[in-house]
Amino acid sequence: MARLFSVFSSRNLLVLSLALNVSLILRVLYEKESGVISGLSLDNKREALRTDSMPSEAHATQKEHLSMPSSSSSSSTVDSNGRDRVINLDHYAEIGKTQVHRQLSFWHLGRSEEYSVCMSEALAPLGRSASENFGRLYFASAFKTGDKSTILIPGWQSMSYFSDAGSLCWFLEPEFAKEIVRLHKVVGNAVTEDRYIVVGTGSTQLYQAVLYALSPLDAVEPLSVVSAAPYYSSYPLITDCLKSGLYKWAGDAQSFNKEGPYIELVTSPNNPDGYVRQSVVNKSGGILVHDLAYYWPQYSPIAAAADHDIMLFTVSKSTGHAGMRIGWALVKDEEAAKKMVKYIELNTIGVSKDSQLRAAKVLQVVTDGCKYPTSKEGSLFDFAAHLMEERWKLLRAAVRQSGLFTLPEFPPGTCRFLNISFAPRPAFAWLKCEAPIEDCEAFLRSNNILTRSGIHFGVGPQYVRISMLDRDENYDVFVERLSTIHLRQSMQLDETAE
Amino acid sequence: MARLFSVFSSRNLLVLSLALNVSLILRVLYEKESGVISGLSLDNKREALRTDSMPSEAHATQKEHLSMPSSSSSSSTVDSNGRDRVINLDHYAEIGKTQVHRQLSFWHLGRSEEYSVCMSEALAPLGRSASENFGRLYFASAFKTGDKSTILIPGWQSMSYFSDAGSLCWFLEPEFAKEIVRLHKVVGNAVTEDRYIVVGTGSTQLYQAVLYALSPLDAVEPLSVVSAAPYYSSYPLITDCLKSGLYKWAGDAQSFNKEGPYIELVTSPNNPDGYVRQSVVNKSGGILVHDLAYYWPQYSPIAAAADHDIMLFTVSKSTGHAGMRIGWALVKDEEAAKKMVKYIELNTIGVSKDSQLRAAKVLQVVTDGCKYPTSKEGSLFDFAAHLMEERWKLLRAAVRQSGLFTLPEFPPGTCRFLNISFAPRPAFAWLKCEAPIEDCEAFLRSNNILTRSGIHFGVGPQYVRISMLDRDENYDVFVERLSTIHLRQSMQLDETAE
Repeated sequence: MARLFSVFSSRNLLVLSLALNVSLILRVLYEKESGVISGLSLDNKREALRTDSMPSEAHATQKEHLSMPSSSSSSSTVDSNGRDRVINLDHYAEIGKTQVHRQLSFWHLGRSEEYSVCMSEALAPLGRSASENFGRLYFASAFKTGDKSTILIPGWQSMSYFSDAGSLCWFLEPEFAKEIVRLHKVVGNAVTEDRYIVVGTGSTQLYQAVLYALSPLDAVEPLSVVSAAPYYSSYPLITDCLKSGLYKWAGDAQSFNKEGPYIELVTSPNNPDGYVRQSVVNKSGGILVHDLAYYWPQYSPIAAAADHDIMLFTVSKSTGHAGMRIGWALVKDEEAAKKMVKYIELNTIGVSKDSQLRAAKVLQVVTDGCKYPTSKEGSLFDFAAHLMEERWKLLRAAVRQSGLFTLPEFPPGTCRFLNISFAPRPAFAWLKCEAPIEDCEAFLRSNNILTRSGIHFGVGPQYVRISMLDRDENYDVFVERLSTIHLRQSMQLDETAE
Repeated sequence: MARLFSVFSSRNLLVLSLALNVSLILRVLYEKESGVISGLSLDNKREALRTDSMPSEAHATQKEHLSMPSSSSSSSTVDSNGRDRVINLDHYAEIGKTQVHRQLSFWHLGRSEEYSVCMSEALAPLGRSASENFGRLYFASAFKTGDKSTILIPGWQSMSYFSDAGSLCWFLEPEFAKEIVRLHKVVGNAVTEDRYIVVGTGSTQLYQAVLYALSPLDAVEPLSVVSAAPYYSSYPLITDCLKSGLYKWAGDAQSFNKEGPYIELVTSPNNPDGYVRQSVVNKSGGILVHDLAYYWPQYSPIAAAADHDIMLFTVSKSTGHAGMRIGWALVKDEEAAKKMVKYIELNTIGVSKDSQLRAAKVLQVVTDGCKYPTSKEGSLFDFAAHLMEERWKLLRAAVRQSGLFTLPEFPPGTCRFLNISFAPRPAFAWLKCEAPIEDCEAFLRSNNILTRSGIHFGVGPQYVRISMLDRDENYDVFVERLSTIHLRQSMQLDETAE
């Protein structure tokens, strides 16, 4: 608890209140701008394209968004009560702006130089996830309090392909490997002893490295890859994009009954529904791969250190540095680790040294922030956990008031890291529309709320996945609208009945 | 010419002479160390592993090297005349050390801090290519003369997945795109007008993105991928590693006679033989992909700006920053560019922003160095071209003296960038053993010279590929040994005859 309270130092409150002012001022300017035709059309194009090219999260729905640029773009148009404004919650890349407004005020107290940098960042329509944002605020403060998280790279440095020629993963920066172990030890979310660390260009590349490593090269038919529905909508797309003869997406693990070897992906906490998961296929010849991207204190209580054969992590979900494209795998079996390294050698001849060096610095600052909770900012996880808690409270209240939806219920658990008991606060809300609504995505779209239909996750259209990580201003409009939908909807039903 | 002479300023000569001293001193220490058993075994392990995991260049020969760790490692053991020392020229990752020794002297004149950094780098057994090294020396000087090539990244910066949400390649940093165009304009090696720029995690990822982009998703059989032998030995391995149903390696383009669509890879200057190339398949339905990784003034005269539909480049061969893992493609067709972007989104969700920002800075410094030839260091290309010229002179002299080998002969051409006429100085020497030698790789190995057999490049065992980019000290021993082989070889032949 002490950690959580430390988040609310007088300094932070000052920051937040100033942030609110700056945020409001900028929003006024913002709305003014959106009235200007030229500015509008530019925003539309950018927003439409961003929605179109949403990384990893929107493969399945790109065409939908392309076909509706006006709506997917009109989040830049706001009327007085926000009723006609489209809220796009089919990705997790929007929260940045308001957070950066907060940061603006933060910087504004400081140096004008950084201020202008942040200003340009705040006004640039770049997607950002809340996790990025946790990082952004945290590292802004870290930077302000002494350049701790800043890295300097001379032109002549780290030019070789090699990071540690003598080690199994010859392109892994030893400094980064060291910080990975330190962070897991302080958070307590994964066992690192007797593991090989394999670095990847994000956990997406590591997932493909795992498929390559686990698939026998001489098999007569492709290895089956399964995951329990609802599963991460990108798994099938990545697995089958090259029509590999080594492996093949085989759908929902619960209904998998093919004989022979297979790979089961266990995403825990799960994307999209946030539940903690175990393997569900009860057959011999199966290999488990654990995607633990969201097993961090801001999303889920850390019950115990995960201790599986293959575990995948990424900085984009832990510290928020998605732009680094850095993930890591903890692998027990030496041969599997060697084949993963081989895939990454064939695919990209290793992983950016610059980003690994920067990731090492960032993880070091995060771990130090955890080890010394007296820091006024609290740890990155303290800050992020509190923000997620706020948002889930708001959402559940809106769902109760509406009466048209249901949400997953999570049992609380004790977090070994935060030393408190709480229920998971996933990065996504897995919302179910109750009867008479059959197509939840279409229903919410008719209310100018864009989500992703359950059909992309291997289940029915009565479910949608909602990003919990949009901008504060969008999120507030969303929950307010959700809470009042039932009235408008019943009216619509009456009209239909007549 | 003025540019070339500018390389020999009194300052450079001082640097070189001091470098020689430092190099000799370090070599003495080095040889002492290699006598120590513990040090030796460590070196052996590292060398063996480095050779085993040689990026990109050694896939085809890994097992060979694994099976001969003692020889592949004994480059760390030197006798008085170097006769028993194994020279490994089956990769291009070794030149770094002596060059760094030069750099050491360079730094030694400067600040002790950088000196210690360089010292640790110099003694670290990391592979480095000559191109890396060109960069290393160049950027060391650039750094010394005012931090021009140094980049500083605060912890909160460039966290988003997005670089330019509104552009076709939404993960391409606009600053990097700008510098790519500037560099091509000043060097004059490629047309950038009316092209889409796609950034990749090295040109290796871009090659795979091209295959994905050009392969019809609904084809009944995989698209044929061909290249004229001798072809880059990694092409077949990368193309077939996942047994894709979209595309398939179909071997030597000269003997390709299958009907229907195909992809022809045109590597120019070619790896391994260094010749400037054109398409050789004369059929309809073919799509050309130009790999121009080596089309830079240090390797080949720049005759004209390349103007092809798809052109691939990489910083590892141009500026030497292999550790960045950054390449770029210049693509005419919008749909092809979009599909390449889609592949990179599926494969790694974009490309490291940190490395792109650093690459932008590095390219900027290189381009500025080209635009102001009054700089005492000369441009990166001046320095690199001179080093390659020296090495090829030494090699041709050794081959003449030996009488057992032949090398490709290149017609001189005028370089629009260096404003002189010269013959290509490729990064690899494509050496042919004349009769009675049948297996050139085995013959050279019996003389403790490790090379890569022609069989990996789609031709016969009478050819080998030799890296021209090894360390100065290794390269000198190699050419000296090559020039004297014929005597020992004839003796061996006499013995066999008796």
